[in-house]
Amino acid sequence: MGNSTRLEHVAIAVSDLEAAVELYRAMLGRAESGREEIEAEQVRAAFFDLGGSRLELLEATQADSPVGRFIDRHGPGLHHIALEVEDLELALQRCRAAGMETVGRAPRQGASGRSVAFLHPKGTGGILIELSQAAG
Amino acid sequence: MGNSTRLEHVAIAVSDLEAAVELYRAMLGRAESGREEIEAEQVRAAFFDLGGSRLELLEATQADSPVGRFIDRHGPGLHHIALEVEDLELALQRCRAAGMETVGRAPRQGASGRSVAFLHPKGTGGILIELSQAAG
Repeated sequence: MGNSTRLEHVAIAVSDLEAAVELYRAMLGRAESGREEIEAEQVRAAFFDLGGSRLELLEATQADSPVGRFIDRHGPGLHHIALEVEDLELALQRCRAAGMETVGRAPRQGASGRSVAFLHPKGTGGILIELSQAAG
Repeated sequence: MGNSTRLEHVAIAVSDLEAAVELYRAMLGRAESGREEIEAEQVRAAFFDLGGSRLELLEATQADSPVGRFIDRHGPGLHHIALEVEDLELALQRCRAAGMETVGRAPRQGASGRSVAFLHPKGTGGILIELSQAAG
């Protein structure tokens, strides 16, 4: 996967998207760069650009959804980080050989034609990690 | 703080630094970019470069230390994220005006002549956030 692996985003589960956007606007001194409702993930999202990386604030649109259940269990906080890799299949081979497991179907289709896979926190030191490869 | 705010690092508290380094080597397909023991923070750290940002793996050198107590309470996982800002004093004014509180003395001297401050998770949506300004 070469040396171009980069931290694509940090995703934070929030209870109240508008309140969170106000806080991060104050912290970062700027407006968000975009909004999106992602129906497949049952979230409303707001994005802040951070020098080649970005912050994603995620609010569940339904209580019984991945982000809704996460907040029930843990409260608001870090939901996952996403690493962009050059070759997702090769990265998954390496991760599995090192004992890491994926969550759900992997790889699968993400937004913008990306291929994505999620690594289970128990294999990564306690953090849900998304690996993502840009459309070829 | 202009538009150059960037995600400087994501710091992960780990129980076993060597095991964590092995996992992230496998995931990222490369070696770590550095090691450091930071006595003031009572941690041993390993770093991985991630396209302008970096991952920091932190292992407590003493059980009764910030990272040691964090792992006791939460288990291994995300410890904090660090945002590099242009003007830390201005950023802190904005954060405080929006109701966020700092942890410990803020700003204070960090590594490499940086000025740093930590925002309490209760004001940021559940995440400890380090704001950091490069030496002028």
